[in-house]
Amino acid sequence: MTKRITASILIIGNEVLSGGVQDVNVKFIASRLTLIGIDLTEVRIIPDIKDVIIFSVNELRKKNNYLFTTGGIGPTHDDITAESVAEAFKVKLVRNEIALKTIEEHHLSIGIRLNSSREKMAYIPETASLIINDISKAPGFRIENVFVLAGFPDIVTSMFKYVEESIETSDPILSKTLKVSKGESFFAQELGNIQSSFKSVDIGSYPIYKKGNEVTDIVFRGKSSQQIEKAIKELKLTLDQKNIKYDF
Amino acid sequence: MTKRITASILIIGNEVLSGGVQDVNVKFIASRLTLIGIDLTEVRIIPDIKDVIIFSVNELRKKNNYLFTTGGIGPTHDDITAESVAEAFKVKLVRNEIALKTIEEHHLSIGIRLNSSREKMAYIPETASLIINDISKAPGFRIENVFVLAGFPDIVTSMFKYVEESIETSDPILSKTLKVSKGESFFAQELGNIQSSFKSVDIGSYPIYKKGNEVTDIVFRGKSSQQIEKAIKELKLTLDQKNIKYDF
Repeated sequence: MTKRITASILIIGNEVLSGGVQDVNVKFIASRLTLIGIDLTEVRIIPDIKDVIIFSVNELRKKNNYLFTTGGIGPTHDDITAESVAEAFKVKLVRNEIALKTIEEHHLSIGIRLNSSREKMAYIPETASLIINDISKAPGFRIENVFVLAGFPDIVTSMFKYVEESIETSDPILSKTLKVSKGESFFAQELGNIQSSFKSVDIGSYPIYKKGNEVTDIVFRGKSSQQIEKAIKELKLTLDQKNIKYDF
Repeated sequence: MTKRITASILIIGNEVLSGGVQDVNVKFIASRLTLIGIDLTEVRIIPDIKDVIIFSVNELRKKNNYLFTTGGIGPTHDDITAESVAEAFKVKLVRNEIALKTIEEHHLSIGIRLNSSREKMAYIPETASLIINDISKAPGFRIENVFVLAGFPDIVTSMFKYVEESIETSDPILSKTLKVSKGESFFAQELGNIQSSFKSVDIGSYPIYKKGNEVTDIVFRGKSSQQIEKAIKELKLTLDQKNIKYDF
């Protein structure tokens, strides 16, 4: 058995809760976590409200090995993640001189002077360390097991490669999909039996409806490719017996 | 002041947490809630684990006027939402004869007989009422303030029109976006002041980076179009003074 490492994600932003923006950060981070063997156990999407951020950060960081937050670290009034995380950890929010220098240099390079809004992005919790932002330069930060990232997807992608360098990883979670040409109810019972026989493989069944036709993706996930292959073989046998096509 | 009605969403499904599937149900439901004046206060994405579903359903249904769940009501072993919700409410999971008839008739119409997996989809909590499914016919259900919907996006869309007919709504939450040709740090301070003057308007600032250029979407949300227009006018004045283009 390889070690189980768990994580959760906290998406901070009214824009997602209002339906104005389609979140894509969950899928990106979730896919990366799968590759580095970390189990994502929960995601929460919450508004830009300080008490809610503090409560959620404290709840999720205690439940999992890691917590990743996105959103709310920019220069405007609705960017309250840094101060909320500082409060969650009961530490001071202080001006980080390295962050300030990075932000100042970036702005000078494009002919813009620092102002109080830009300076605001250099304030991070006292005990935090910086996470590099290759896109717009204002850094994210890590405090204990919490990683505070920007909200803009390109910046999340960019920051996450530095996150991956600094966290404990495990064997990748492998995933294989068998595309079945019939609806799941044609073989649901047998699939349940296969799941019971292969405890180390997580078998998911996802119906897809296209123009009245139902087909099914069966996803096998786990850390042992041997077990996954065995489970797939079992399902293929069942489908053959039922004259149901797969990988069509 | 119009009445505040709140809701939360619970996305049940390993496929979203593994990064295998991009959730789109949150954005759809969130957009609809905005139109019917309901505040979405929280979204959680959780795995297909019974205890987690029971805990989350009970926590979220007590915190909000409504809870919408998606996923886990199909015929396979990983579809455990109905039994979990029944347990959350401490009521029996029983075979609903109307649901059974609907499922049977649909399958007969496409030349398929009922089997135990298909029959499973007719089991709903004893005190629940059905939600029509125009796509694949197996219904969702409502129990008290909890609406249990399918996971497949077309079915969610289809079911949600019946949900909207049966819930209390309020004045629509209006939203207007001003596209600003500069990064948010050029006017963040003033924007914060405008937010302070217009408490009934929720002003969000969303940076967009394109090929090294930063532009900003400023989103004004609220129930009073008059207040929204006044806030926008204030921001336009500020931007004019700073020679910053908008709605470019």
